Amino acid sequence: MSMTLWVIVACGALSIVYGVWAIQSVMAADAGNQRMQEIAGAIQEGAQAYLTRQYTTIGIVGVVIFALVAWFLSFTAAIGFALGAILSAAAGFIGMLVSVRANVRTTQAASRSLAAGLSIAFRAGAVTGLLVAGLALLGVAAYFLILTSFVGYEPNDRTVIDALVALGFGASLISIFARLGGGIFTKGADVGGDLVGKVEAGIPEDDPRNAATIADNVGDNVGDCAGMAADLFETYAVTVVATMVLASIYFVGTDFLASAMLYPLAIGAACVVTSIVGTFFVRLGSTGSIMGALYKGFIATGVLSAIVLWPVTMLLFGMDTEFETVRGVTMTGWDLYWCGIAGLVVTAVIIVITEYYTGTNYRPVRSIANSSVSGHGTNVIQGLAVSMEATALPAIVIIAGIVVTYQLAGLFGIAVAVTTMLALAGVVVALDAFGPVTDNAGGIAEMADLPADVRGTTDALDAVGNTTKAVTKGYAIGSAGLGALVLFAAYTEDLTYFMSDTARFPYFEGVEPNFSLQNPYVVVGLFFGGLLPYLFGSMGMMAVGRAAGSIVEEVRRQFRENPGIMEGTVRPNYTRAVDLLTKAAIREMIVPSLLPVLSPIVVYFAVEAIAGRSAAFSALGAMLLGVIVTGLFVAISMTAGGGAWDNAKKYIEDGHFGGKGSEAHKAAVTGDTVGDPYKDTAGPAVNPMIKITNIVALLLLAVLAH
Amino acid sequence: MSMTLWVIVACGALSIVYGVWAIQSVMAADAGNQRMQEIAGAIQEGAQAYLTRQYTTIGIVGVVIFALVAWFLSFTAAIGFALGAILSAAAGFIGMLVSVRANVRTTQAASRSLAAGLSIAFRAGAVTGLLVAGLALLGVAAYFLILTSFVGYEPNDRTVIDALVALGFGASLISIFARLGGGIFTKGADVGGDLVGKVEAGIPEDDPRNAATIADNVGDNVGDCAGMAADLFETYAVTVVATMVLASIYFVGTDFLASAMLYPLAIGAACVVTSIVGTFFVRLGSTGSIMGALYKGFIATGVLSAIVLWPVTMLLFGMDTEFETVRGVTMTGWDLYWCGIAGLVVTAVIIVITEYYTGTNYRPVRSIANSSVSGHGTNVIQGLAVSMEATALPAIVIIAGIVVTYQLAGLFGIAVAVTTMLALAGVVVALDAFGPVTDNAGGIAEMADLPADVRGTTDALDAVGNTTKAVTKGYAIGSAGLGALVLFAAYTEDLTYFMSDTARFPYFEGVEPNFSLQNPYVVVGLFFGGLLPYLFGSMGMMAVGRAAGSIVEEVRRQFRENPGIMEGTVRPNYTRAVDLLTKAAIREMIVPSLLPVLSPIVVYFAVEAIAGRSAAFSALGAMLLGVIVTGLFVAISMTAGGGAWDNAKKYIEDGHFGGKGSEAHKAAVTGDTVGDPYKDTAGPAVNPMIKITNIVALLLLAVLAH
Repeated sequence: MSMTLWVIVACGALSIVYGVWAIQSVMAADAGNQRMQEIAGAIQEGAQAYLTRQYTTIGIVGVVIFALVAWFLSFTAAIGFALGAILSAAAGFIGMLVSVRANVRTTQAASRSLAAGLSIAFRAGAVTGLLVAGLALLGVAAYFLILTSFVGYEPNDRTVIDALVALGFGASLISIFARLGGGIFTKGADVGGDLVGKVEAGIPEDDPRNAATIADNVGDNVGDCAGMAADLFETYAVTVVATMVLASIYFVGTDFLASAMLYPLAIGAACVVTSIVGTFFVRLGSTGSIMGALYKGFIATGVLSAIVLWPVTMLLFGMDTEFETVRGVTMTGWDLYWCGIAGLVVTAVIIVITEYYTGTNYRPVRSIANSSVSGHGTNVIQGLAVSMEATALPAIVIIAGIVVTYQLAGLFGIAVAVTTMLALAGVVVALDAFGPVTDNAGGIAEMADLPADVRGTTDALDAVGNTTKAVTKGYAIGSAGLGALVLFAAYTEDLTYFMSDTARFPYFEGVEPNFSLQNPYVVVGLFFGGLLPYLFGSMGMMAVGRAAGSIVEEVRRQFRENPGIMEGTVRPNYTRAVDLLTKAAIREMIVPSLLPVLSPIVVYFAVEAIAGRSAAFSALGAMLLGVIVTGLFVAISMTAGGGAWDNAKKYIEDGHFGGKGSEAHKAAVTGDTVGDPYKDTAGPAVNPMIKITNIVALLLLAVLAH
Repeated sequence: MSMTLWVIVACGALSIVYGVWAIQSVMAADAGNQRMQEIAGAIQEGAQAYLTRQYTTIGIVGVVIFALVAWFLSFTAAIGFALGAILSAAAGFIGMLVSVRANVRTTQAASRSLAAGLSIAFRAGAVTGLLVAGLALLGVAAYFLILTSFVGYEPNDRTVIDALVALGFGASLISIFARLGGGIFTKGADVGGDLVGKVEAGIPEDDPRNAATIADNVGDNVGDCAGMAADLFETYAVTVVATMVLASIYFVGTDFLASAMLYPLAIGAACVVTSIVGTFFVRLGSTGSIMGALYKGFIATGVLSAIVLWPVTMLLFGMDTEFETVRGVTMTGWDLYWCGIAGLVVTAVIIVITEYYTGTNYRPVRSIANSSVSGHGTNVIQGLAVSMEATALPAIVIIAGIVVTYQLAGLFGIAVAVTTMLALAGVVVALDAFGPVTDNAGGIAEMADLPADVRGTTDALDAVGNTTKAVTKGYAIGSAGLGALVLFAAYTEDLTYFMSDTARFPYFEGVEPNFSLQNPYVVVGLFFGGLLPYLFGSMGMMAVGRAAGSIVEEVRRQFRENPGIMEGTVRPNYTRAVDLLTKAAIREMIVPSLLPVLSPIVVYFAVEAIAGRSAAFSALGAMLLGVIVTGLFVAISMTAGGGAWDNAKKYIEDGHFGGKGSEAHKAAVTGDTVGDPYKDTAGPAVNPMIKITNIVALLLLAVLAH
């Protein structure tokens, strides 16, 4: 076992090697003229200042929780918590550092050719992508290796399980704050800047006279890059941990315990390698299709993964040997292999569906563009209708995934499918993280007064970025849907474990949870869980509204007090806008982030006080599913809808329905503004919210047991 | 038993007596000058033509289903189906007939005083309200009386149960079509008319030069009046039937079987009487608060109902005798009394919450008005945020209702609470149905060039109408949430009944459904149910978009081909607009209406093919809860959000944030337009959609058994 673990750790480390190489190759590129470097410098400064402050704030919360975890659980668990938090923060921070240096180099490269621009931007994104997958794998595998091989715990020892869950909790905590804080920052700047610039002052997006413009570019890096990285890091870590926890329970006492616990890590290791190989397939073809170039990288990774999964499964289980879980589910290596393939297929199909709903070539986006002709209201109505419709096919794909993999290998089969799905995080995040780089590149081109065709090139890259951003979010929330039963099983199996040994865990004496839908406390839990994404989404959107409002005030003030700004003779004070948003985002992220942390605790103790422990454990469990049932639809509708609105605007700007400056364009700008907090603040934060609710419930069980 | 039933039938009949008296008193009022009567005549003609056509179309579907029910179940069930459908249609049709005659009389009365206008409008609304509650009660009670006393069936005979469920199905079928068809008509006219009139041509709302203006007024009557009536009729009938079905199962073989089955009918009967009395308390006080006047009527009804519930419970059960269901739940008359009180309290609290979220005096509406200052986009963002936030408190109230009533008297306690909640339908619908009358009255004042202060009076009435409309919808969907377990229990208990006698029902041989959340087919059912409100909502909103688009084209064509219209020298062709919308609404209502009818059947047979009957029954059951879990939030957010948007616009028109014609007002008009299909088409149709899914599942069980 420890030999295999060393190989897995080595694969994780390979992602760091790739990262170092890719960073060097990005940094070697030409950074453009002095004006461009000046602008990029301001963005770098702002992004670093914001992230430092954000992580410092989270750090304070983190130290308190570290102490609580050490006190209530164990020091080993507290170390796991710190590891998850620090590695997640590192992936986001390094990703941002690369991104803010790649932006100006992409602008410069885009002035040569589309292919050159794509190459730099994608390589920068790939650093973030591979670090997310690699560091998450490395963290879990290395800590597991240390605890089992060096400290000498059994792989399924409770201390090891608690330590891994705590690692997931560390990652989740970073992720909810980073997604929300970054999301509020970026969309506060974007919405506020557009309102006061495009709408009020009538100057173009990214015009250097707008004091919010640097903040907008900073936002792309701290929200769409670092925030997204933290989200996917957490999704990856929590899924792998949950699968390992299930394996430790289902295969306890069988010959396959070690293999089953290593399997998710081995899948992750194999796919880190295939993802690295896949990045080299991203290359603009003769048709010049950017989406086509990205697809090549994804397809290469997918096909290679499907191939590599075979020897991995073979080595751990053999392909034809039949084996059995302690719950009596039998399976073979082939069954698990096909579950992995199902995970790859679900990923691919979700990408295709998301492209359909957010790409400019298909009915949904065009129908929004078309409805913009009759005004702001009809644009928003059609956009909302599309956003709701966009949930149906992904839900059906997830349903199919659950049914197929459960038929193959029971709950462990579903867990393997979700793990394989997320094992592709390296390449999926790479496809996404190039978006903010190109978005910035366009901004720099505008501010540095480069020729219009440079902006044209970056705009083409940016439009694809809207789709890939929606893809990543659909993928993350889709994995939560497919993994709903896995997370729920981690809870129920943990509960069963504690209930089966009431001599050691007297708190669970006489507890008999009943998860039947006929139990009113289950329905109560479903409703309570169901309201969380709604309340949370509402908080996120209102926070963006307030942050944007403060930016509008600030920019107006600068225009008023310094008329030279509008004439172009004086530079506006960019730093003040960045500072203002930094404070707003940090302040606004606290309360909504605490909602999913505190809800499981409140629900448990409230129901316990009224109806006793059995009812409380039932309600808490149902709440974990309730939050996914509505969360899945809220998140997909928001992220797909927001992407569609954004691209409907771009479609009109490409000259359809009257083009830029027409009434239809104004209506489309409104839709885009509405879509901003939808797709970049509230929607994507639902995924970490679901995960953190689940993780807190697991920790609550462990704490009650102690 | 039959004596009590006769009294109940008599109470139901009393509502008809009240209706006849109220109609006469409305008709006796002055109908205004000739121009006003001309306009009202056009509205009457359009509304009658539309409803006739709508009911004819539904009739064709109905005849087919009548034959299917007669074939698969029994002729008795088919008669029940027809009875439910016909009575529901009658309540809507009569309500509309009164409403289109009261509108012009309200305009005339409003030219005298606010109190006079309120009086006529409210009395017209009360006709609809009392007919809804009275006819629904009458239908169920009389058919039950006939089957048990005349035909001689036992009250809990399967034939009687099937017949009552079929009666609910008849009501549901009318309701889904009427809600959607009426909703598409009214909002197609409203959105289309506003876009081409207010926004494009720059003429005020209800300007006679706008060809869509009569259609808009027709829409109020066929959507907000007849559609809403059908919705509440169905909610009432289905709830009473489900409670009777549960009673027939829980008390089988006990002394309390007859009492328990009569109890929901007795509560309904008592509350019809208290609702009639309550209507006489609606009177403008010295403060001139319209909402206050309406509250007086509601509070009087509530207090009287709380009093009358005591003797009703006493007569049927005694207050202190303890008795037991066959499932071993013990209760006393006092327990059931307190469950009824809980139902009244839930209703009252939901009204207060809805007023908070949609009234112009509180934070939510003002925050939307405030955000309109910075533009269309921020108005919509804030509106969406408010709409999502508005779901939290109602959900918590529903959760509290479930917990309290279940603790008191188990599932039957929850059923009693929901029944009592809906027993107030008479007065709640009365408060709502006065809305379309005043909306029309305002339109007539505008078109007939009456002095501005008449319009001012009708506008004040109309603003309150926005809140009461949202209240009714929140109340209807809230009852679905509180009743979720009751509907689900009707399904599971039916299933248990068939499974317990596989000699008679061989189809159920070996069926062992498992409704635990640990069963993947339960999660599959939850997800599938969860997607229905999203897909259905999307269809409804797109239908409104298309209908509005066709109206825009038509009005533009009339302006273009006949320049005299704009100059005011030629009357536009109102009839063509009405015809166009009639065709569009009838066409567009079919597919979305079939979604909830066919989904249970498709899910059942799809899962059965893959995983067998047990899994299929589990998935189908879970789907019934899944559709409520997301439906509750989708419906509340849409109806409350739409009401808030509408009143934010009214708040600005009252002179805040720049008043009429300001940029903020334009943004608020956009929000109002978005809110239109939200609150009047997609949102309210979710409630009948939930009910019809449940009823079809029950019928599917019965059909499979035969």
